[in-house]
Amino acid sequence: MIPSIEWIDETNTVKMIDQTVLPHNLNFLEFRDYREVANSIKIMNIRGAPAIGVAAAMGFCLAALEFQYMDYKTFRSYMKQASDTMRSTRPTAVNLFWAINRMQGIIDTNSKQNPKKIAQLMIEEAKLMWKEDIDTNHAIGKHGAQILENGDTVLTHCNAGSLATVQYGTALAPVRWAIEEQGKNIQVIADETRPRLQGARLTAFELQYDKIPVKVQSDNCAGLMMMLGKVDKVIVGADRIVRDAVFNKIGTYMVALAAKRHNIPFYVAAPESTLSMNETRKDVTIEQRDGKEVSNVLGKVEIIPDGVEVINYAFDITPFDLISGIITEHGIFQHRELLKKYKK
Amino acid sequence: MIPSIEWIDETNTVKMIDQTVLPHNLNFLEFRDYREVANSIKIMNIRGAPAIGVAAAMGFCLAALEFQYMDYKTFRSYMKQASDTMRSTRPTAVNLFWAINRMQGIIDTNSKQNPKKIAQLMIEEAKLMWKEDIDTNHAIGKHGAQILENGDTVLTHCNAGSLATVQYGTALAPVRWAIEEQGKNIQVIADETRPRLQGARLTAFELQYDKIPVKVQSDNCAGLMMMLGKVDKVIVGADRIVRDAVFNKIGTYMVALAAKRHNIPFYVAAPESTLSMNETRKDVTIEQRDGKEVSNVLGKVEIIPDGVEVINYAFDITPFDLISGIITEHGIFQHRELLKKYKK
Repeated sequence: MIPSIEWIDETNTVKMIDQTVLPHNLNFLEFRDYREVANSIKIMNIRGAPAIGVAAAMGFCLAALEFQYMDYKTFRSYMKQASDTMRSTRPTAVNLFWAINRMQGIIDTNSKQNPKKIAQLMIEEAKLMWKEDIDTNHAIGKHGAQILENGDTVLTHCNAGSLATVQYGTALAPVRWAIEEQGKNIQVIADETRPRLQGARLTAFELQYDKIPVKVQSDNCAGLMMMLGKVDKVIVGADRIVRDAVFNKIGTYMVALAAKRHNIPFYVAAPESTLSMNETRKDVTIEQRDGKEVSNVLGKVEIIPDGVEVINYAFDITPFDLISGIITEHGIFQHRELLKKYKK
Repeated sequence: MIPSIEWIDETNTVKMIDQTVLPHNLNFLEFRDYREVANSIKIMNIRGAPAIGVAAAMGFCLAALEFQYMDYKTFRSYMKQASDTMRSTRPTAVNLFWAINRMQGIIDTNSKQNPKKIAQLMIEEAKLMWKEDIDTNHAIGKHGAQILENGDTVLTHCNAGSLATVQYGTALAPVRWAIEEQGKNIQVIADETRPRLQGARLTAFELQYDKIPVKVQSDNCAGLMMMLGKVDKVIVGADRIVRDAVFNKIGTYMVALAAKRHNIPFYVAAPESTLSMNETRKDVTIEQRDGKEVSNVLGKVEIIPDGVEVINYAFDITPFDLISGIITEHGIFQHRELLKKYKK
C-alpha cells in the first residue's frame, strides 16, 4: 500500500492521497501552506486518527518554514496561531493534539536556537513520527495477530487501515500480519460506514489493492451477520481511548453491542498516542459535522427532502464492558491492565 | 397523506405512488397488467408489508380480468400462474402471501360462478382489503398512542408509515394518533435505513408532508442518541412476526439491542395479517437483494471499488426478549399473550 502521507524534502511539501475521491480516483494533493493542510484535515482529504496526527505535525512544519526568518519570540507567537488552526480542525481524535504537543515541545526546548534551525528540527521530528507510526503499526499487527485463527472472518467498521495511518493500519494491521507473516487465511467484512462511507470506499480499496479478501455490507447488516455465525472477530480502530470508554467512528457502539450479544470478541487496535487516560468520557467533545454529509451522499445524490433537519455525530462511545481488549504496539491489554499501566 | 395505492374502477387500473423517486418527485404509476404490478413490487415502486399485500391483491384482480372469458378450469390454472408470479416477488413479507391466499379463496369458493363474475368479486374483495387496511392502521394508532407521552421523541427504522400501507401507517400510526387525536407533542427521529434509504426518503417525506416534526440520522447514530438520552421510545413495523422473533428491515435488530441496553421501550406495530404464528424463525427465508443496492446509492453514485463483493440481506431477526410489545389493531400484546392468543 502507498503511504497516505509523505514529507518531500526537495520541495518542503506535504504530499497526501486525496481520500475524498477514492476508490475510483487515486489522486495526490501537495501542500506548502499549513492552512491548506489544516483544511485538508477538516474536509477529510486525510482522516484516521494516526494519519491526521502526522498530517498536523507536517502542517506545523510548513508553518515553521513560513515563519523561520522571524525572531524567536515572534516566531513562537505565530506558531501559536498555526497550532490553534491545526487544533481546531477535528475535536475528537486525540492523536492530533498529541502530535501538535510533541512538535510544540521542540519549539519550547530550543528557545536558544534560531527559528530556522528549529524548523529543521521540527521537520526531523515529523519525519521520525512518520517512521514511528509505521513501526508502531507493525507491532500492533504482530500482537494483534495472536487473536486471529486460520479461517477467521474479521468484521471492521470504518477504515483503520493503511489509509488511516501512514501505512499498514491499526485495526487492519493484525489482519495483514496474520496473512503476510503467518500465512493464515483471513477474510474481512467491511461495514460501509455511513455517512462518509470510509469502509465501502477506503477499507475495500486498500484491501483489494493488497489482494486481501474483503466484502462490503451496509452497517445495518452487522447484527444479522453475527447472528448467522458469519463473523468470528471484530477489530476496530479508535480516535480516543479514555479511562472508561473508547471513542471511535459513529456506529462502533452498535457493532460492539451486537458482538457482546453473540459472544464475538471485540477488539480495539490503536497506538499508545490514542490513549488519553487522564480523561473520562465526560471530558470529550463529540464532533458534530455538517448534515449534508448524511443528506447528500458523497456530495452527489440528495436523499432527504429539503428542509428536514439532520443529526450527524461523527463518533460514538463504546464502554469497556463491551471490549475484549485493546491492542497497542506494546501488547494486548484488558481494561484493568490499561488502568494499572496508565495510572492517573 | 395520499394513499400509496388505489384501484380505479372506471379504467380497471392499479394506481400507485412510485416510491423509488421520492422524496424529490411525487410520480404516479398506473398498471393494467398483473405482470407489471408484480414487477413494481419486485423493484420496490411499492414496498412495505401491508402495501404490497394490497398491491398483490389488486395485481391478482388484473390477472382475473385478463382471464375472465376463459372457462373456470382454464381460468383457475392461469390464475395459479399469476399467483406464482405474485408470490415470487418478495419472499419475506408475509402479508403478500396472506393477501394472495385470501384472493385465492374467492376463486376456490366460487367454482360454480363464471370467471367474469369471480373477477368482479375479487375486485370487491381487494377494495375491501384496501379499506380494512386503513381501518386497521387507525386501530393500531389508537392502541399504540397509549405508550406515547407528551414530549416523547420516537425513533423509527425504515418506513412503516402511510407509504408502507394503504394510508396512515403502522409504526407511525401511534405517532399520528397521539398528535392528531390526542394533541400530544411528539417528535420523530428517522434512521436513514441503508441501503434503500426508506427512512431518509419516505419517512421524512411523509412526516414533513403532514407537518409532523422529523429529523433524519444515519443508522449508525441510533446507539449514541439513546446513550445521550435523546430517544424515549422506539416503534418499528414488521414484515413477518413468527413465534420466536420479528422479521423487519435490516438494522432493526441492532436498534433493538441498543434500546435494550438503555431500557428504552421497543415496540413493533403491525396488522394481524403480518402474524405467522405457525412458524418459527427457522421457517423464514431472508431475502438477499442485488448488491448494487449497496454499492450504487439509489442507482446514482458508486461507493465501492469494482470487483468487491457485497452482502445485502434485506431483513433481520429481532428475538422477543428485545421487544416490549406488539401493537396490532386488537391491542398491545406481550410475547406470552401473543403465544396464548395464537396457539399453534
